[in-house]
Amino acid sequence: MVKAVALLSGGLDSTVTLARAVKAGDDVTALSFRYGQRHQKELDSARKVAEHYGTKHVIVDLDLSSFTSSALTSKELPVPERKDASQIGEDIPVTYVPSRNIIFLSVASGLAETIGADRIYIGANALDYSGYPDCRPEFFQAFEKVLAVGTKRGVEGRPVRVVTPILRLTKAEIVKLGVELDAPLELTWSCYVGGAKACGRCDSCLLRLKGFREAGLKDPIEYEVRQ
Amino acid sequence: MVKAVALLSGGLDSTVTLARAVKAGDDVTALSFRYGQRHQKELDSARKVAEHYGTKHVIVDLDLSSFTSSALTSKELPVPERKDASQIGEDIPVTYVPSRNIIFLSVASGLAETIGADRIYIGANALDYSGYPDCRPEFFQAFEKVLAVGTKRGVEGRPVRVVTPILRLTKAEIVKLGVELDAPLELTWSCYVGGAKACGRCDSCLLRLKGFREAGLKDPIEYEVRQ
Repeated sequence: MVKAVALLSGGLDSTVTLARAVKAGDDVTALSFRYGQRHQKELDSARKVAEHYGTKHVIVDLDLSSFTSSALTSKELPVPERKDASQIGEDIPVTYVPSRNIIFLSVASGLAETIGADRIYIGANALDYSGYPDCRPEFFQAFEKVLAVGTKRGVEGRPVRVVTPILRLTKAEIVKLGVELDAPLELTWSCYVGGAKACGRCDSCLLRLKGFREAGLKDPIEYEVRQ
Repeated sequence: MVKAVALLSGGLDSTVTLARAVKAGDDVTALSFRYGQRHQKELDSARKVAEHYGTKHVIVDLDLSSFTSSALTSKELPVPERKDASQIGEDIPVTYVPSRNIIFLSVASGLAETIGADRIYIGANALDYSGYPDCRPEFFQAFEKVLAVGTKRGVEGRPVRVVTPILRLTKAEIVKLGVELDAPLELTWSCYVGGAKACGRCDSCLLRLKGFREAGLKDPIEYEVRQ
């Protein structure tokens, strides 16, 4: 049985990715971060999703809010609101957390080395992901090279691989894959704001709603605005 | 004035590296981690060294002890003691913290992006450093590639560079460079154990003492054993 670490934010993408890892038969340890998010709803969702699958779940405290300026960790910067997903451009948005995936993959590498895992699953997406540079295929290739030359396992010829099952899928395809894998999408949380219900107006909500709409499916979570 | 982040553990190597960054005229922010070390003496030294230079100092909490098995973070594994530095072999020691430099550089990248720094200084050493894979030149090259393709600054054509001033120096050369730069070596702490005085028997103490001896200088810190 192959051991794996799966980065789990509690959002749609990481949950579908975890579903894929579980379906592949891997012995999965989910890894989440308490990194100074504006709200705890995502982390609550991560806990519920890990519980749903009965996987081990490691939560690492890493307070990035002390130095990042992103709207995702700062309580001063407003999260941008848009009317629809077509307004999300090619530019890198203010919700970009500097080096976030680099940091998360680095800690995942440490955990993978410790427990003897062969794979790190990450639910990054190059198409629908608002133009974050650390969600592109060339980034993951470069990171695998770091693991090959910079870790004990790597120099021993057994480098940890980075697996990105949804990298090239559209949000609609991710939704369909999640339904096909019977992933608990009703437990996930994608909204940047973190109210009682999802706001339906931030980039993340808009992309998610667009994905469900294009997949011809109804999102099982509740929104402040009509879907 | 070039902005820079300098990783500062409080040990000899990172202190000499910080001294080099300050000497270069960079506007330096020192970065240290509270990562579940067995003792706080290193971090106390980091604070004193940063104060000495009057640099900004960011300390990030990142508790790796929850999943690492290294003797440097575990209170159960004994730190190996040796009679002299010649016993330190080519093998990767139990004091290896999985992916430590990868993790530290990743967070340094996040900080560099946030404050607009062009350089990350790290006091890694490929010669005298007990065979850690994440202290080798090919690792730093691979990591720079990650920064070039996986960060906002990188894709904008201004990637953060990783500077390793002491990578190819012997410990004796590092000691001499520190003295030449007037670095506060008396404030540094290298011992893995963390007693009132340095133990003089762990790998780190043995390498340090050998370095001072070969440089023809007396180490200004106190040891439990006679130098």
